Amino acid sequence: MTMKDFDFATSGRILFGRGKLDVLSEVIKYYGKKALVIKGKKFPNADKLLEILHRAGKNIQIFVVPHEPDIDLIEQSIREARKSQCDFVVGFGGGAVGDAGKAVSALLNNPGNLIDYLEVVGKGERLKNPSFPYIAIPTTAGTGSEVTRNAVIRVPKSRVKVSLRHAYLLPSIAIIDPELTLSVPPTVTASTGMDAFTQVIEPYVTKFTNPVVDMFCREGIPLGAKNLLSAYENGAHLEARENMAYVSLLGGLSLANAKLGAVHGFAGPIGGMFNAPHGTICAALLPAVMQVNAEQISKVDGEEKKVNRFKEIAEWITGDKAATIQDGVEWISSLAASLEIPGLSELGISSSDFASIIDKSKRSSSMKGNPVTLSDDQLERILEMSM
Amino acid sequence: MTMKDFDFATSGRILFGRGKLDVLSEVIKYYGKKALVIKGKKFPNADKLLEILHRAGKNIQIFVVPHEPDIDLIEQSIREARKSQCDFVVGFGGGAVGDAGKAVSALLNNPGNLIDYLEVVGKGERLKNPSFPYIAIPTTAGTGSEVTRNAVIRVPKSRVKVSLRHAYLLPSIAIIDPELTLSVPPTVTASTGMDAFTQVIEPYVTKFTNPVVDMFCREGIPLGAKNLLSAYENGAHLEARENMAYVSLLGGLSLANAKLGAVHGFAGPIGGMFNAPHGTICAALLPAVMQVNAEQISKVDGEEKKVNRFKEIAEWITGDKAATIQDGVEWISSLAASLEIPGLSELGISSSDFASIIDKSKRSSSMKGNPVTLSDDQLERILEMSM
Repeated sequence: MTMKDFDFATSGRILFGRGKLDVLSEVIKYYGKKALVIKGKKFPNADKLLEILHRAGKNIQIFVVPHEPDIDLIEQSIREARKSQCDFVVGFGGGAVGDAGKAVSALLNNPGNLIDYLEVVGKGERLKNPSFPYIAIPTTAGTGSEVTRNAVIRVPKSRVKVSLRHAYLLPSIAIIDPELTLSVPPTVTASTGMDAFTQVIEPYVTKFTNPVVDMFCREGIPLGAKNLLSAYENGAHLEARENMAYVSLLGGLSLANAKLGAVHGFAGPIGGMFNAPHGTICAALLPAVMQVNAEQISKVDGEEKKVNRFKEIAEWITGDKAATIQDGVEWISSLAASLEIPGLSELGISSSDFASIIDKSKRSSSMKGNPVTLSDDQLERILEMSM
Repeated sequence: MTMKDFDFATSGRILFGRGKLDVLSEVIKYYGKKALVIKGKKFPNADKLLEILHRAGKNIQIFVVPHEPDIDLIEQSIREARKSQCDFVVGFGGGAVGDAGKAVSALLNNPGNLIDYLEVVGKGERLKNPSFPYIAIPTTAGTGSEVTRNAVIRVPKSRVKVSLRHAYLLPSIAIIDPELTLSVPPTVTASTGMDAFTQVIEPYVTKFTNPVVDMFCREGIPLGAKNLLSAYENGAHLEARENMAYVSLLGGLSLANAKLGAVHGFAGPIGGMFNAPHGTICAALLPAVMQVNAEQISKVDGEEKKVNRFKEIAEWITGDKAATIQDGVEWISSLAASLEIPGLSELGISSSDFASIIDKSKRSSSMKGNPVTLSDDQLERILEMSM
């Protein structure tokens, strides 16, 4: 029995279920009059959201997030939000909207500019005051951003992605309604789903495991394996959508409370250097990372427990008690193939970028959680395999 | 696959581990100058707590809770707290202290008197403002009060126990340090431990199961079964203490997010009528409730899934894949015997009280969660068996 030692935090309240968007009318009852709605460019179901707010007698201001948030976009939304005199913020969309919503709610109740609070590129100041009430309503099943404590923001000038990070960024309320993901197109279902799947796998084999997170991973890994392809092949399959929304939530709970690994260690820097969606990058990397990690971990003395966890993952995803680690790795590769995940080369990456990606990845916080320390050669092999 | 539909909330941050009390110095850094410490009558380790607060430059006012909180005691502590001009509250003790701490922190930031906000005996008003920052530090492994959203308060005049209930009652921070439970005497280890054990069992078979809570129960039930007797027999057994502290946390997370069952359905009213510790009452009732529930659930059509959950519990606690439900029930009875749990009669209850207890229990919220609706005769049988 290992010693239990952990730190766990999550959003104030997590509401999950089919049609759960309807409870919004109840949860906003005690908030003020003016809502700032942050949403994606086109999302078919925002009508229902706006109708609920309208019926509840709220005034609405809308801010549209057309792509993954960069610093200019967030600065602009903060300026608009401050002028709006809103009482609370609703983020309705995918990971980009979720991150924007967190940053805006935080800066609505803290002085100064976003850059003052950013790590790496800014002053890295600590947020002084709790965020404005923020209701996160994800419309994809991927990032789990509704229960994480950071907002990822691109800084195009420096070609990096940095985080605004604080427990205050945990949304006040997360409403996860699987019905909202029914119209997500297959390519997005694939990439966001692989992101979610990665986020229940990496924390289970991280160097910094956490017994609460272990529970989420043990639940999320088999559920992701069983449902991702179904959701991709038949977007109207509500049970598969529901289960993937749950996997995404479990992934968010896991990554927010344990470190990740090499997939995210790579995905951060790559996302800063190339303008590709986070989920797509993760999806391209997962099979190779699993392969190389599995090979390496077996060679390290005293890592029997970790090796056993890789074995467990293989059993859960294949549904076969006799599955070997290699069977698990092959299963994931074959899933990625079925999901038609594009390789890194299709995202504009070439082998001349490898040195720079590897250099940045080695310094990322997620890479420190990887179950085994990987050499430059091994990291390069992962990139090559993921092209 | 059942549909997933749930509402989940917990304390702002949960810190767990041996010696974790030390992190208090870090978490209070951003709070104000004045701490109100609510503690039990005698607790050997409060010195360390006070030293940490002192070293952090905080001014300290202490309020002592000598027994399970009744309305006069809480009203008095609220008056003192309001005069104290404190910036935050620390509750350091068992369930009684935990409940008092929640009520005091809530009323520090809400106008009026406690009675205005109490259900049943008071006006049942809704808390308007969030509680003052409240750090819950349990020193027993039982109630899980550090992650629940209600404070149970006795009203001696009406011989009832009522709850102050609101999401605002979730502590800002829970610090669970198993070392603090090392000096808990065996009888208290037994009763609080059985309370914790009950709180991972009842939510697993409740009428209102919740997939997140299921995870906690699946983890907590075998862990409780393996460790409670060890902690009772050898209070210095740190691993057993740690595991029981974890079971208690899991129980709190479970009961706060799913309903309970007949043990708690009885324990509330009995606790109001007789001045006995909550844990002792639960412990006395658990074996008979398991027995009668297990008998009844098998007779109900369409409850195969629930029956299967009883079977799972039996397997987990006995550690035997072939265990029957009856084996599980017998295992719990034998655990209660080994823990020398006193019967209800020793708490001052006689058979002439049964009618009144049954009447009140049937109307309790926990009883509505019991896996099967029990007749008056069946409820009476449970009481008789628990004498």
